[in-house]
Amino acid sequence: MTQKIGKGTFLFERGPSLLAAATVAGPDEGRGPLGEAFDQVVPDLWVGQKSWEQAERELLLRAGQMLLLKGNWKPGDVDLMVGGDLLDQLVTTHFAARTLDIPTLGLFSACATLTAGLTVAAMAVDGGWGEKVMVTVASHHHAAERQYRYPVELGIQKPGTAQWTATGAAAFMVGKGGKVVIREATPGRVVDYGVKDPFDMGGAMAPAARDTLLRHLSDTRRTVGDYDAIVTGDLAAVGTSLFRELLLEEGVPVEGRHHDCGLLLYDRGTQKEVGAGGSGAACSGLVTAAHILPKLERGEWRRVLLMATGSLHSPTTYRQGESIPCIAHAVVLEREEGTA
Amino acid sequence: MTQKIGKGTFLFERGPSLLAAATVAGPDEGRGPLGEAFDQVVPDLWVGQKSWEQAERELLLRAGQMLLLKGNWKPGDVDLMVGGDLLDQLVTTHFAARTLDIPTLGLFSACATLTAGLTVAAMAVDGGWGEKVMVTVASHHHAAERQYRYPVELGIQKPGTAQWTATGAAAFMVGKGGKVVIREATPGRVVDYGVKDPFDMGGAMAPAARDTLLRHLSDTRRTVGDYDAIVTGDLAAVGTSLFRELLLEEGVPVEGRHHDCGLLLYDRGTQKEVGAGGSGAACSGLVTAAHILPKLERGEWRRVLLMATGSLHSPTTYRQGESIPCIAHAVVLEREEGTA
Repeated sequence: MTQKIGKGTFLFERGPSLLAAATVAGPDEGRGPLGEAFDQVVPDLWVGQKSWEQAERELLLRAGQMLLLKGNWKPGDVDLMVGGDLLDQLVTTHFAARTLDIPTLGLFSACATLTAGLTVAAMAVDGGWGEKVMVTVASHHHAAERQYRYPVELGIQKPGTAQWTATGAAAFMVGKGGKVVIREATPGRVVDYGVKDPFDMGGAMAPAARDTLLRHLSDTRRTVGDYDAIVTGDLAAVGTSLFRELLLEEGVPVEGRHHDCGLLLYDRGTQKEVGAGGSGAACSGLVTAAHILPKLERGEWRRVLLMATGSLHSPTTYRQGESIPCIAHAVVLEREEGTA
Repeated sequence: MTQKIGKGTFLFERGPSLLAAATVAGPDEGRGPLGEAFDQVVPDLWVGQKSWEQAERELLLRAGQMLLLKGNWKPGDVDLMVGGDLLDQLVTTHFAARTLDIPTLGLFSACATLTAGLTVAAMAVDGGWGEKVMVTVASHHHAAERQYRYPVELGIQKPGTAQWTATGAAAFMVGKGGKVVIREATPGRVVDYGVKDPFDMGGAMAPAARDTLLRHLSDTRRTVGDYDAIVTGDLAAVGTSLFRELLLEEGVPVEGRHHDCGLLLYDRGTQKEVGAGGSGAACSGLVTAAHILPKLERGEWRRVLLMATGSLHSPTTYRQGESIPCIAHAVVLEREEGTA
């Protein structure tokens, strides 16, 4: 038995699907174009906690608990939690998992973690190892900034290419019988074009998104037109331009079909502080739950290629003069035919 | 179709197996009791590189490339690489994956990463998504010490409960048709008994190993006597005593069947510097490849419960006064009946 398509795309024949999603968003995300669509918007970045790290954890816990409530599930009903965050040693995910008390596999693909998690969850459900698998992502603007760059309190000026780490958490339940199925997955390769500037992550990530998209289309023998939308994770303005340009060079125009979560999450016209747009592990999670899934559920879109993108550098490798290796994992979300 | 046993154990019915393993060990590990059994022992901790982080990456690259050579495989033959290391943002794994050019899912369960990786690889092969999946782990004594505690150059004294982060890398190929199959997996829950001392990780991890073992035995309706060996990852001396004591309290004596990779990797009698014993993501990887697999291949053992253990704290959570959440993921390795 093989469920592999082409060289590197996984097919999920038994239709693992997204049963529910829950989101908790930060104040800036709440003021953005999707603000109304989040389950909860917190009024400030502290979320009642004493540190940014604890605040991030609280966001994830709330999203996880809200997800359980939505399906009237107990933690014991969930076979596995797979997810990740940006903080060293995935402390957000693991400390939240301690409270949720669900067996957990921690994943790190930086801001590409959502689709890595959906891939592992789809394998677990499709293969019969789990009936319900929870996928989680979280990030927090201040916690990420002080770990990766500078504490926000220092007021360091950023170039216009810089992106804004989203504050929020998203949790998804993967199981069987939902309207939106995870049909395929194309795990990403690590791609590095030599970009070294951590204030231009979109530019660094665009080649990884290009690589995964081209491999996915080749494996599935589809064209861009076979998707209602191709949604990248957080290329933002600079990365989006470069991504489209790189694909044009390959004779694969994506403009018109291509959207980017980093551009959908904020209104760059009024929210000047976000620079080139959003990033962070929560970015694609919030947009998937609040924008992509509803469109699929309503039938406005029937097939979406969701391709979260991640920068895999660390502050240490940056200081050691290394370039930024990047990755993009793709999953295909489809509206199940014949469902109401 | 279900492949779940009990509440939380995955059954792999189509027999994903370990086709080959490759190890590169540091000098201290080379002087230990398993020294002769490693594929390569490097003479010093620099491994020809300019930083400890680059040295760790070089160890992993060598292990990965050696694994490919052993099976006469090309990178293009490998469907997926799953693995992790201890460094922030998994830079060892991801930078090595950039060179190996294999689609990659990064996992972080600290020193429990090996069995997390074997679980995901077994799912991928059993479910038909991959024919060959590579599982990798790596750690480096100096790189880990300066990230988690103090740079070794400072010469900070450690208490006797402290463990020694192993230097090395191990790579395993999971596919079909090998002598040693991955029969089951029981992913761990995050368990925290309130230990806050990063110099007593064995004590912190023992309750997580207890939890996973009890759940595994309950799921499979087996007893300790059904395993030729129950091997924990890196509880070392302090954690091993506590683990056995906790299980005795449950009426589950494991002494006689229980081994610990952290105790097998070094000779504590002559290698005083290792304190309570080994730890690090490479610890269970090196011992599994050099000691457990050969015993299974020779038929000395027929069924082993391998349970790598991990401490999930970060230096930030430690400084913020948090306790150390821990995890243990178990896999059952069996000598395939009827193979020569």
